[in-house]
Amino acid sequence: MSIKFENLDSALKKLLSNVSFYPEIEEVEPLNSYKRVLAEDLISPIDLPIRDISHVDGFAIRAEDTKGASKERSISLKIKGKVWAGEFPSFTIKKGEAAKVFTGAYIPDGADSMVMLEEVIQRDGKILISREVKRGEEVILKGSDFKKGSLILEKGSFIKAQHIGMLMNFGIKRIKVFRRPKIAIMPVGSELSDNLEDFEKGKIIDSHSWIIAKLIEENGGEAIHMGIVEDDLNNIHKKLKEGLKYDMIMTIGGSSLGEKDLVHKAINSIGKPGVLVHGLKLQPGRVAGFGVVDGKPIFILPGLIQSTINSFIFLAYPCLQYYFNREPKSYSIRVKAQLEEDLKFKRYRDFKKVSWVKLNYREGNYYAKPIFGMSPMTHVIGRADGYVLIEAYIEEVKRGEEVFVNLIDGL
Amino acid sequence: MSIKFENLDSALKKLLSNVSFYPEIEEVEPLNSYKRVLAEDLISPIDLPIRDISHVDGFAIRAEDTKGASKERSISLKIKGKVWAGEFPSFTIKKGEAAKVFTGAYIPDGADSMVMLEEVIQRDGKILISREVKRGEEVILKGSDFKKGSLILEKGSFIKAQHIGMLMNFGIKRIKVFRRPKIAIMPVGSELSDNLEDFEKGKIIDSHSWIIAKLIEENGGEAIHMGIVEDDLNNIHKKLKEGLKYDMIMTIGGSSLGEKDLVHKAINSIGKPGVLVHGLKLQPGRVAGFGVVDGKPIFILPGLIQSTINSFIFLAYPCLQYYFNREPKSYSIRVKAQLEEDLKFKRYRDFKKVSWVKLNYREGNYYAKPIFGMSPMTHVIGRADGYVLIEAYIEEVKRGEEVFVNLIDGL
Repeated sequence: MSIKFENLDSALKKLLSNVSFYPEIEEVEPLNSYKRVLAEDLISPIDLPIRDISHVDGFAIRAEDTKGASKERSISLKIKGKVWAGEFPSFTIKKGEAAKVFTGAYIPDGADSMVMLEEVIQRDGKILISREVKRGEEVILKGSDFKKGSLILEKGSFIKAQHIGMLMNFGIKRIKVFRRPKIAIMPVGSELSDNLEDFEKGKIIDSHSWIIAKLIEENGGEAIHMGIVEDDLNNIHKKLKEGLKYDMIMTIGGSSLGEKDLVHKAINSIGKPGVLVHGLKLQPGRVAGFGVVDGKPIFILPGLIQSTINSFIFLAYPCLQYYFNREPKSYSIRVKAQLEEDLKFKRYRDFKKVSWVKLNYREGNYYAKPIFGMSPMTHVIGRADGYVLIEAYIEEVKRGEEVFVNLIDGL
Repeated sequence: MSIKFENLDSALKKLLSNVSFYPEIEEVEPLNSYKRVLAEDLISPIDLPIRDISHVDGFAIRAEDTKGASKERSISLKIKGKVWAGEFPSFTIKKGEAAKVFTGAYIPDGADSMVMLEEVIQRDGKILISREVKRGEEVILKGSDFKKGSLILEKGSFIKAQHIGMLMNFGIKRIKVFRRPKIAIMPVGSELSDNLEDFEKGKIIDSHSWIIAKLIEENGGEAIHMGIVEDDLNNIHKKLKEGLKYDMIMTIGGSSLGEKDLVHKAINSIGKPGVLVHGLKLQPGRVAGFGVVDGKPIFILPGLIQSTINSFIFLAYPCLQYYFNREPKSYSIRVKAQLEEDLKFKRYRDFKKVSWVKLNYREGNYYAKPIFGMSPMTHVIGRADGYVLIEAYIEEVKRGEEVFVNLIDGL
């Protein structure tokens, strides 16, 4: 088996055209829908607000009753009653009448406008108004927030905090969301240990799995840690078979061409089409790849931390978005920043390069400070806020140049 | 009680100089530390890596043994043994010797450089090298990731996914984090109901509480919903007293000057100094404020949704950061974008204004589309990704101008 380095774009295309997801749909209460992904277009079942409401504390009136009013010639209206927020008015407003209405309360039938409390003089059960009020002033019209039948949120929306409250206002009790994809995580390597003390014996702590697990959870998936898998073809084969009951598999480590690197063989042994890409024109990350079996992606994430994270971002993260019917991007948001140190790239000319940076904000501008260090060094991503992607064939990016810093939720 | 509108900056200063937080410190495992805030400077207990390791699959050699080597005159070294990742080498390398070493494995004593597998010819227990190798090539030196005694993460750091794995690599079992502040949420108003069906009876659904609760949780706090509080001075007084056992209180609603708005009175009735700010030069959000009792902040968030969220962002969110010893900002990240529609402001000249916008990304640029709608309308924040803050006295921002869009985690 040899490495053939593939362009990022064509690799991702190959991935998405070979997987097939049929995500089940679940119903959840709005209160339990935070960070879930909507599986339906949500349509407003009602007009919101359900009746005209007042935007202020004041008096509901008929605008035409104020015709000709001025400071010199104020007009007088009889106070017919009060309306508190949370109750329907029990009376209607006729010519020459007004009702005290509080902020957010319903405006009685007959009235069409509000005049603010501080603008009127109250005396003997009457109010005096000394200007003409325009029809509709300070009134929030029925259906002006959402019309019955209009779109509230579209399929594929990620539910944010404000949506929870918004949905409750419609009296919506359940919404359809995609089931969280279950993603099996398999760190591969006899050098690994999950006993934190074993680093003293020369073992390598299985730490990458837990970073990947958090990124999966933060971005809508469910991570299932399958335990450390020893470097043995049978072992890996068995674990992969077991992993096929989930929606995706991510192996970590065992992806280069060392004598113990058996992941590729094992993937090909469990089903078709097997490994589709082994090698990415991405640095760090060049020994990453993926296979597909039964329509399910099996990501081959390399074991050196920068490579692990980079290949997660460029293969697994967009695939997760794709599962949810969302655009398969490799970032959640991007921030323009000025580069604070030169970046130079001598090797891997035709590869894209990833440079991790720390963002600093000063006087209205962001600055991106590159964190240098070899692929296995943990401080690089540990101190970084996001990454800059440098196109192939670019050998240098100068200090002061404007770059995009790409952020991923959870990192 | 009358409203006196205070500048945002001086209001925040008054808030932070009157509260006193003594956050307790808890110990948690790195695996349970996601999104917690570090309460200590974390110092590296060891050199990382603990010994020199190889960056590649190849042979560990002594660089000086390759002196004079060339394509015409390759030199030959005896293969003394193999080192796998996860074990300590059991032998040393002497003059004329080499050892096969896999990526991430420790380099035997005596060797100082790595030569890649694909660069050598293996024959009869020997390798042939046809170039001079520089001392230290492809070697990751002991302590080059972190030196013993150096700073890993500073106090006040928000623990992100990558930190979890990073800390495990040090064998760190527990870290000190600030206890999550417990924040009591009190929606105030007899018009409120927590029965989703009651909107048909004219009631207003208590939806804002749950938005605020999620924002608190997403940003490191613990939200305790105290239930809806009826408009009654005794009731509010009692609930506030009860809320004082927590670290902060947020009332929602009941903050304007309508006949039922009793929150301010109630705050002053439970202790000193009581209400410190009532009224902000912020629109929407102008009837917001806060009190302090026993050093604990009591936020007075208005009941119309845009005002609720805006005042949360400009008072409560920075206060939450302050609790954690972090910079008291009103955003988590800001993105430069081009405004897509004119913004005009006629009223509240000396107020700052908040305009909620949707971010759209096209061809390397972000565009900010303002979402218009009155303060109680839920679709405004529902459709927005972030907000633009417009300085006082600015009456117009033109389409095409560059603005900062401020993002808050969870929104």
